[in-house]
Amino acid sequence: MAQDKKVEQITSMEDDFAQWYTDICRKAELVEYASVKGFTILRPYGYAIWENIQRLMDAEFKKTGHTNVAMPVLIPESLLKKEGELVNGFAPEVAWVTMGGSEELEERLAFRPTSETMFCDHWHSVLQSYRQLPMLYNQWCSVIRWEKTTRPFLRSREFWWQEGHTIHETAEEAKAETEQQLNCYADFCENVLAMPVVKGRKTDKEKFAGAEATYTIECMMKDHKALQSATSHYFGDKFSRAYDVTFTGRDNKLQYPFQTSWGSTTRLIGAVIMTHGDNNGLVLPPRIAPIQLVAIPIAAHKNPAVLDTVKSILEKLNAAGIRTKLDDSDQSMGWKCAEYEMRGVPVRLELGPRDLEAGQCCLVRRDNGEKATASVDGIVDAVGKLLDDIHDNMYAMAKKNLEDNTFDFTSWEEVRDMAQGKGGFARTKWCGSLECELAMKEKAGVSSRCMPLKQSGTTGKCPVCGKECTTDIYWGVAY
Amino acid sequence: MAQDKKVEQITSMEDDFAQWYTDICRKAELVEYASVKGFTILRPYGYAIWENIQRLMDAEFKKTGHTNVAMPVLIPESLLKKEGELVNGFAPEVAWVTMGGSEELEERLAFRPTSETMFCDHWHSVLQSYRQLPMLYNQWCSVIRWEKTTRPFLRSREFWWQEGHTIHETAEEAKAETEQQLNCYADFCENVLAMPVVKGRKTDKEKFAGAEATYTIECMMKDHKALQSATSHYFGDKFSRAYDVTFTGRDNKLQYPFQTSWGSTTRLIGAVIMTHGDNNGLVLPPRIAPIQLVAIPIAAHKNPAVLDTVKSILEKLNAAGIRTKLDDSDQSMGWKCAEYEMRGVPVRLELGPRDLEAGQCCLVRRDNGEKATASVDGIVDAVGKLLDDIHDNMYAMAKKNLEDNTFDFTSWEEVRDMAQGKGGFARTKWCGSLECELAMKEKAGVSSRCMPLKQSGTTGKCPVCGKECTTDIYWGVAY
Repeated sequence: MAQDKKVEQITSMEDDFAQWYTDICRKAELVEYASVKGFTILRPYGYAIWENIQRLMDAEFKKTGHTNVAMPVLIPESLLKKEGELVNGFAPEVAWVTMGGSEELEERLAFRPTSETMFCDHWHSVLQSYRQLPMLYNQWCSVIRWEKTTRPFLRSREFWWQEGHTIHETAEEAKAETEQQLNCYADFCENVLAMPVVKGRKTDKEKFAGAEATYTIECMMKDHKALQSATSHYFGDKFSRAYDVTFTGRDNKLQYPFQTSWGSTTRLIGAVIMTHGDNNGLVLPPRIAPIQLVAIPIAAHKNPAVLDTVKSILEKLNAAGIRTKLDDSDQSMGWKCAEYEMRGVPVRLELGPRDLEAGQCCLVRRDNGEKATASVDGIVDAVGKLLDDIHDNMYAMAKKNLEDNTFDFTSWEEVRDMAQGKGGFARTKWCGSLECELAMKEKAGVSSRCMPLKQSGTTGKCPVCGKECTTDIYWGVAY
Repeated sequence: MAQDKKVEQITSMEDDFAQWYTDICRKAELVEYASVKGFTILRPYGYAIWENIQRLMDAEFKKTGHTNVAMPVLIPESLLKKEGELVNGFAPEVAWVTMGGSEELEERLAFRPTSETMFCDHWHSVLQSYRQLPMLYNQWCSVIRWEKTTRPFLRSREFWWQEGHTIHETAEEAKAETEQQLNCYADFCENVLAMPVVKGRKTDKEKFAGAEATYTIECMMKDHKALQSATSHYFGDKFSRAYDVTFTGRDNKLQYPFQTSWGSTTRLIGAVIMTHGDNNGLVLPPRIAPIQLVAIPIAAHKNPAVLDTVKSILEKLNAAGIRTKLDDSDQSMGWKCAEYEMRGVPVRLELGPRDLEAGQCCLVRRDNGEKATASVDGIVDAVGKLLDDIHDNMYAMAKKNLEDNTFDFTSWEEVRDMAQGKGGFARTKWCGSLECELAMKEKAGVSSRCMPLKQSGTTGKCPVCGKECTTDIYWGVAY
């Protein structure tokens, strides 16, 4: 955040964080508003980031035996209504199809806000024996939730996501799945997106409609606000009973399977922007960057060997699986630097006539602006290592932001002062009552983020009612 | 089709081709009907086929500079109506969203039946200069068309597809794109799906609503009916004008870009089933088969080294990128053979104690049932070659079916006799009039499939009106 601002059209994050965010979304050409209110378009550069997330996350899901399927996008109202809590949770946000062609439909159909009901309906018709369990399904699709206020990636009426849905023979297996997938998300955020997370369980107030337990990963943005970045739910056999999903067990008796679901969305791109971006624009984690290295030949018109050498370097890098781009256009060097910084390209390679003579080139890092010289001969190893270093440094910076702005408090007044000041995560004890949770919102202006999986085990006082208790909880202002 | 029928639950194709098709779709667990009328569920095995198609086709699109994007799924009615022909073509099939949450919408929104309008609306807002052209976009998504009668993969109210949309500076470039993408589809069908195609242009009656020209690839199924398997459209600047999409040209004047679109759908899976399947079930082209080789150890309980050897073979095959599955379950050999034949797995590997001693195993082909012995040491090369041989043989068989059942006729009576007999493609001359095209439908019961790109150049008589003409055209009964 201390760097000089090179791209004039981006608002400084210190002046107006929200406008800074919107500027990056629009000017790095990630999204565009559609003419349908509250809907966005994922443009090529934004979609390429999502494709990389999909590819890498999907591979993780498959390692643990999950397979993809496609369920219908429309859900009959009667089907949606079979489980009361779910429909109550989503009813105000559902888009309804009421006409097919020129005919009024007998029953209106919901554009899926989430697909637990469709999966249960499918399992109702295909599940017979414990031998078929577990069923470990996932789908990549879009859903609609009719939000009142929208922001690119963070909250829009249509968004793109994956929703995992599984059923298991026993409660223990389903609980293990819920936990495994939470860890999968946490590892993905750390290893791929360079974002540290707080793993925890949601309070009853904040959990998913119809779930027995909801687990979450919470990330801290550069403005010290919280972003819920993925969730994993355990349903017990509640939906199985509501949708009559049964199987013949090992004991030859009819049983209800235990169910989970877990999801992450294009919101992850918003998290990446607000975790890593700076006043020059986007800073992309190398493993999801559509372009990992942009090469800019210098004074190539004076020496054609410059361009040839740059091209042969890029060929080698491409062969090693590194995503590159050549910019030999006639735009100025200043324009090019600003453009690729704005787009968050992790490494810029520059090579001119003098470098050519020395058999070297210059590598400039996006994350910290450092320049280094690399030999042309060893370029593949040098760039590979540099991309890993950039990832590690980005993770370390984000981790420092999280740790520096997480505070242990014992009174709600301290939490309020933090929230009204520079923000952050407040870690306190909590007695477990809804009253104290609501009071914290009312008095301190924060919502509960999660009860961290790593509990200290110590005893302390609830900052609202003062009761002795052991549960640790995180509070914060959330997107 | 001459093989013995091993799986009793599949209807013979000779008895009832339609039922045979449905049996395969259901019993190979490709699709299941949803509880929403006319909608289907893509189950894991069916979706895995679609994933392979997506992965390989997407790579081809990217080779020629196309990038993926995501457009909103809902289109305002006023936007859809700006181009008259398009909306007239699709209006009877549109599903309408009229409520968001509990509020009636001011303007109803169409669930996209196709996205030309959304792309034009986006280009209207982002296109400025010829320097941005061409814009070569594609999206993978689902669309809804409210069909009256539906069949798995072939015609359903929701289906999954890719839709390419491009704009170009000149008409020539747009026409070249239309042709390039038609060839891309044709090559994909031949090289990946082992399906020969007839490439051609649709008549005005059969072309896409609003297009200036529609090109198609037509495939012949085993029942000698035609299946339109992908289409590519040239729009001229018609939509650009309707949606006010303009750019400043090289001459500094405002111009309208020229547009194309092209699409292929999950219908391709239906085409694969009906091109290659037999009375034992599915026969999958190796390049899209989710499982390319299934390994069945024989009498492994008597000799543990059998299972170890099979596992080490599979490790080697997996490392070479071959998709494998081990079945060491306690099901009978007969059950396993029938099961994997039904699922269309290209190669079955069997290895028992005697094979172990000889350092060999048995490879059984799904396409023609042939068995061969292979040495364990050379297994990777042997299986790689076998998969290619199977592809080539499947293509040759399908090509023979196409050629043996394509007929040159000069009278409509011959076409009628063919259509009422064993079916096929009838190639005739055509005068170009709508009257004769309609008469052919009325009298002979066939529709025009396409005017092949390879025209003979000879002169002959229109089989309906007898007028001298040069255009070659294909007729057939279509799905």
